[in-house]
Amino acid sequence: MPNHENRSKRSGSFVLLNGAPKRAAGAVWLVGAGPGDPELLTIKALKVLQAAEVVVHDGLVSDEILDLAPASARRISVAKRKSRHSYSQDEINRMLVAFALDGLKVVRLKGGDPFIFGRGGEELEACREARVECQVVPGVTAALAAGAGAGAPLTHRGSAQAVTFVTGHAAKGGEPDLDWESLAKPNLTVVIYMGVSMAGPIAARLLGAGRAGSTPALIVENASRADERRVLTTLAGLPQAAESVSGPALLIVGEAMALAHAGQAPPQVEAVLRKVRA
Amino acid sequence: MPNHENRSKRSGSFVLLNGAPKRAAGAVWLVGAGPGDPELLTIKALKVLQAAEVVVHDGLVSDEILDLAPASARRISVAKRKSRHSYSQDEINRMLVAFALDGLKVVRLKGGDPFIFGRGGEELEACREARVECQVVPGVTAALAAGAGAGAPLTHRGSAQAVTFVTGHAAKGGEPDLDWESLAKPNLTVVIYMGVSMAGPIAARLLGAGRAGSTPALIVENASRADERRVLTTLAGLPQAAESVSGPALLIVGEAMALAHAGQAPPQVEAVLRKVRA
Repeated sequence: MPNHENRSKRSGSFVLLNGAPKRAAGAVWLVGAGPGDPELLTIKALKVLQAAEVVVHDGLVSDEILDLAPASARRISVAKRKSRHSYSQDEINRMLVAFALDGLKVVRLKGGDPFIFGRGGEELEACREARVECQVVPGVTAALAAGAGAGAPLTHRGSAQAVTFVTGHAAKGGEPDLDWESLAKPNLTVVIYMGVSMAGPIAARLLGAGRAGSTPALIVENASRADERRVLTTLAGLPQAAESVSGPALLIVGEAMALAHAGQAPPQVEAVLRKVRA
Repeated sequence: MPNHENRSKRSGSFVLLNGAPKRAAGAVWLVGAGPGDPELLTIKALKVLQAAEVVVHDGLVSDEILDLAPASARRISVAKRKSRHSYSQDEINRMLVAFALDGLKVVRLKGGDPFIFGRGGEELEACREARVECQVVPGVTAALAAGAGAGAPLTHRGSAQAVTFVTGHAAKGGEPDLDWESLAKPNLTVVIYMGVSMAGPIAARLLGAGRAGSTPALIVENASRADERRVLTTLAGLPQAAESVSGPALLIVGEAMALAHAGQAPPQVEAVLRKVRA
């Protein structure tokens, strides 16, 4: 938490307005860092990050991306940890507001997009309640990178007329409470974030609601990173295939995943460019 | 279409391999240009665009973004036009393949993300059939920018456990054939791309399937552009509100849209940064 006593002595944090000293207003930016590859940051995210005074970040944001913030910026990890204290969402909200009220430019840096299972909405509400300026910079959510890397479109004429993003992580733990009937319809791509540990129950529910066991299913671990790994299977084979996955991963179920190529990461764009230039 | 006779005379397009002249391989990049704001390009998209020899682009891609390609790059618009010849998808596919087989670095530049209603899957398949190298660079799809700009999360604890992207544009024209029962469930954000002209039938179907008329609905025109405009209404009010919209727009229906602020574009990040720095 920022220390108001110390910071208020910094003359740089005051501006003169109507003759009275006022602290310059801070602000919070909720910034999507994209799926992992630093080149999948947007230009806007990079600019905002380069102006940050405080960066509050998730565990999924890589050091390579954090290094893009000024060396002087304070970095605070609010990664979930199994063994020791994790920040609650309420603590994160209060931290963002406190730093901004202290006049600082606060970047809340999240993997993917802030508004797709990023809990950005809760942080935005906390800023609004405290009358703290809050801007949102969208990012490439992991599903888009997973589809791009696998060469598998999330929507596709004839086999995927719509795409739904859900989370496999229930608010209160245990099995997610989803609308399985809707997700079992054909011609729909279902992307399950944070679903690997629940792959068994999720596949069982989808099968139980009538989705074909032969529906292609793709697991993408560490989408867009150097260690990206893909497993192409079927809905029936999903639980067993998920057992080999240890890192953060997406499950994608749908007929259009038949177009996916499995295996390791594809040649990076730079490598292809070098080849083309040779 | 590229002219093989002329281009094959350029010595620069040959490399010597095993003593025999071979043309260097071309390749196709399917690149998401993001929602409109050039700063919402990814760094990767910018790099690939800067190496392009041919840019085949949609109408939604702005001149500001096209100007990032080398001046020497050939630019071809395949925008849909009402009054004169438009390229069919098959013609676009054949054009991409022909340029790549001619040894060129081809960027297929699309608004948003190539795999969210971008028909990128069809272009990828055409490249695969012709054994042309094809890479996909994901982009910020319009829905993410619309949510970010409006300050309205697409998923939100307690009011949006999932988000579905559909298109309001039917393959054969007329009313879209969607799974209205699924889309009418509460606690789901429904994003309708290309749905403005069908706002009446879409709202009627959702209401008929049981979605509450009081469900918040947001129309976002020109998301992330300087002329972005938002209208916050309800599902019942959507058809009338859509009448005032003329540009490309998204319809977003769901309880979480209650958090949206309507009206013109928010202050741009740069403006806020200037204010904070003052």
